[in-house]
Amino acid sequence: MTLPPRMRALLLNDDGYSSKSSGALLEDMGSYVTLGDIEVPEPGPSQVLVKVSVAAINPSDVMFVKGLYGQPRQKGQPAGFEGVGTVVAAGAEPAAQRLVGQRIAFPTGRSNWGSWAEYAIAEAAACIPLMDGVKDTDGAAMIVNPLTALAMFGIVKEEGEKAFVLTAAASQLCKLLMGAAREEGYRPIAIVRRDDQIPLLEAAGAAHVLNTTAPDFADKLAKVMKAEQPRIFLDAVTGPLAGQIFAAMPKRARWIIYGRLDPETTPIPEPGQMIFMHKRVEGFWLTEWLRASPPERRVEVVKEAQKRFIDGRWSTDVTAVVPLEEAVAKVPGELAKPNGKVFITP
Amino acid sequence: MTLPPRMRALLLNDDGYSSKSSGALLEDMGSYVTLGDIEVPEPGPSQVLVKVSVAAINPSDVMFVKGLYGQPRQKGQPAGFEGVGTVVAAGAEPAAQRLVGQRIAFPTGRSNWGSWAEYAIAEAAACIPLMDGVKDTDGAAMIVNPLTALAMFGIVKEEGEKAFVLTAAASQLCKLLMGAAREEGYRPIAIVRRDDQIPLLEAAGAAHVLNTTAPDFADKLAKVMKAEQPRIFLDAVTGPLAGQIFAAMPKRARWIIYGRLDPETTPIPEPGQMIFMHKRVEGFWLTEWLRASPPERRVEVVKEAQKRFIDGRWSTDVTAVVPLEEAVAKVPGELAKPNGKVFITP
Repeated sequence: MTLPPRMRALLLNDDGYSSKSSGALLEDMGSYVTLGDIEVPEPGPSQVLVKVSVAAINPSDVMFVKGLYGQPRQKGQPAGFEGVGTVVAAGAEPAAQRLVGQRIAFPTGRSNWGSWAEYAIAEAAACIPLMDGVKDTDGAAMIVNPLTALAMFGIVKEEGEKAFVLTAAASQLCKLLMGAAREEGYRPIAIVRRDDQIPLLEAAGAAHVLNTTAPDFADKLAKVMKAEQPRIFLDAVTGPLAGQIFAAMPKRARWIIYGRLDPETTPIPEPGQMIFMHKRVEGFWLTEWLRASPPERRVEVVKEAQKRFIDGRWSTDVTAVVPLEEAVAKVPGELAKPNGKVFITP
Repeated sequence: MTLPPRMRALLLNDDGYSSKSSGALLEDMGSYVTLGDIEVPEPGPSQVLVKVSVAAINPSDVMFVKGLYGQPRQKGQPAGFEGVGTVVAAGAEPAAQRLVGQRIAFPTGRSNWGSWAEYAIAEAAACIPLMDGVKDTDGAAMIVNPLTALAMFGIVKEEGEKAFVLTAAASQLCKLLMGAAREEGYRPIAIVRRDDQIPLLEAAGAAHVLNTTAPDFADKLAKVMKAEQPRIFLDAVTGPLAGQIFAAMPKRARWIIYGRLDPETTPIPEPGQMIFMHKRVEGFWLTEWLRASPPERRVEVVKEAQKRFIDGRWSTDVTAVVPLEEAVAKVPGELAKPNGKVFITP
C-alpha cells in the first residue's frame, strides 16, 4: 500500500500549558487548533500507523487543546486522544506487525500524533482489534470514557456504599458508568441542570436525578443525602455548586474531581468537615490510574467495555459526525448540544 | 478528705452546635461560658475526681465553646479539655483507685465535666501521673498539644519528605512539632504573619520562616517550594492564604486541615491540580487519631512528651495564668497576645 507523503490534520496552535483559567466548554475551536497539512508520520518499532476512520472528541481533548490538561501541548502537532481506524503500517516489533490490516480502536497517548488527522500513531500494545459487531462510533469512543467509567466505578465498589453522586451526569461517561452500576445494584445520584434530562438519566440507571436549577434543589439534596448516605462524589464540574454538594454529604465523603466544566472558584464551604467528619478532596486522572494499575486490569476493563458495546448494554449517543475540513467551524456548536457525543471524520 | 457539695466553674451557655461561621479567635468569652456554681460531680467506676490546679486553654477549647468542634456542647456543664491537678476521689476500679493522691495531667474527653472548674472528671486510663520535675503549666498542656504535634509529625515521617509546611507556626503546638522535627533532621517551613516571629521560629526549629504580609511573599513561597519540595501542609488557618500555599506546593501535596483560624471562605485555587498533580485535601482530628491508633502508641507518645518537658527539650511559653473568677473578663485579651499559652487557675 502506498502512503501519501502529507496529510490533513487539526494542528495545535500553542506549546506547553496555558495560564488562563477556563472550563471544559469549547467556546471556539480556532483559538486552539488550525486545519493544515503535515507530513504523514512514521511509526516507531513498537507503534502502528492508523488510517483514521472516526476520531472522538472527549472533554479531556478540549482541556488538552486549551493547555489545561496534565501533559504539555506541542505546537504544530495533531490533537485527538482516541479514534478508530485501520492499521496501514507498523514498526518492526511482532506485536505491531500483527496488527497490520486490522480495524482497531486506538489511544494516541503521548505519541504527539493525535487522532484528529487522516493518519495517527499509536502504541501497538494499547490498540484494541475490534470485533465485527462494533460500530465505528462505538470503537472511536472505546477507550477514554469506558476506561474512566469502569475505573471510577471500581473506586465506588471499593468504598462499599451502594449510593454515589455524579455531576455532569448526562455525559456519555456518566451514562456508561450508571449503566454498569445499576446492573450490580448500585444507586447513582445524578446531578444535572435541566429537567428534560431527568427521564433520560432514570433510563440510564440513576436512582435519583436532581436538577441544580430547581428552586428546591438544596432541600432535595439534603433529603437524598440523608436517605442514601453516599460516600463517593465523582465530579466533572467543580465550582460553588460542587462545593455545596460536598458540604451536604455525610461523614467520610470523598470528593473526587476528574473534570472542571465550571471555571468559577471552587470553595470548600465547611473546612471543619475535613477535621471532624473526615471528609477528603482528591482527584482522578485516567493516565495516573493506568500508570498505577497492573496491565492485566487494563486489558480486562477494555474487554469488558467491548463486550458491553457488542451486546447492547452500552451504546454511544451520537450528536454529530463532523468532517475534518469543517471541524473548526462546526464542532463548538455541536458540542454545546446536550446528551451526546461529537466525532470527527477525515 | 471532705469535698464541698458545690464548686465554681465556667459553664457552657449553649447546647449542641452553632450554625454561625466563625474562626478560632475568642473575641469575647461571655457569649459562650458563664461563671457559676454547680454541684461537685461524682466519678464513675473507671473515673477520677481531680482538684484542678491549672487548666489549659487550647484552640480546640475555643472551637468547642463556640459550638464549632466535633462534639456537641451540653448547656450548664463546665468547659475545658485538659488540665493538671490532684486526684481527690476515684471510682471503684483499681486503675482509678491507684491514682488517689497523685498529681496528674488529665484530659476530660467526653466526660462533660471540663477542666475550667475547681473539680473535674477524667477517665483513669487517660490520666498521666506527673514526675516531680514537671511544672504545673507544662502538665496542664501535656496532652492535647503534644499528642497532636507528635501524631502529625508521624504523618510527615510516613510521607517521607524532609520538608513540610506549617501555618500559625508561632503556636505552642507548632513549636513543639518543629523542635521534635529538627532533632530528626526534618525541615519545617513556618508560615507566620509578623516579622518579629521570624527569629523566634528559627530558634524553635524552622528551616524557613515566611511572613505572609511581606510584599514578596508569593515569590519567596515559590522559591522555597521549589527548593524543598514539601508534600505535607499542616494547616490551622484555612481561608484564601492557605489555598494559595497549597496551590504553590509540588505534585502529590497533601493539605491537612486541623484548625480554622480564618473564617473566610476556603478556596481550592487550582482544582486541576487535584486531577493532574494528585494533590489531596484532608483533615486531622486528635480524637479520630486516638480512636484509630493502638493504645500502646498513645502511651508511648505521652511518655515521650513528658520526657521532653523534663529534660528541657520542650517548654511551655506562658502568656498568662488567669484566675477562674476573672477568666471571662481577661482571657480574650491574653489570648490575643502572640506566641504564648494562657491558663486558668481555680
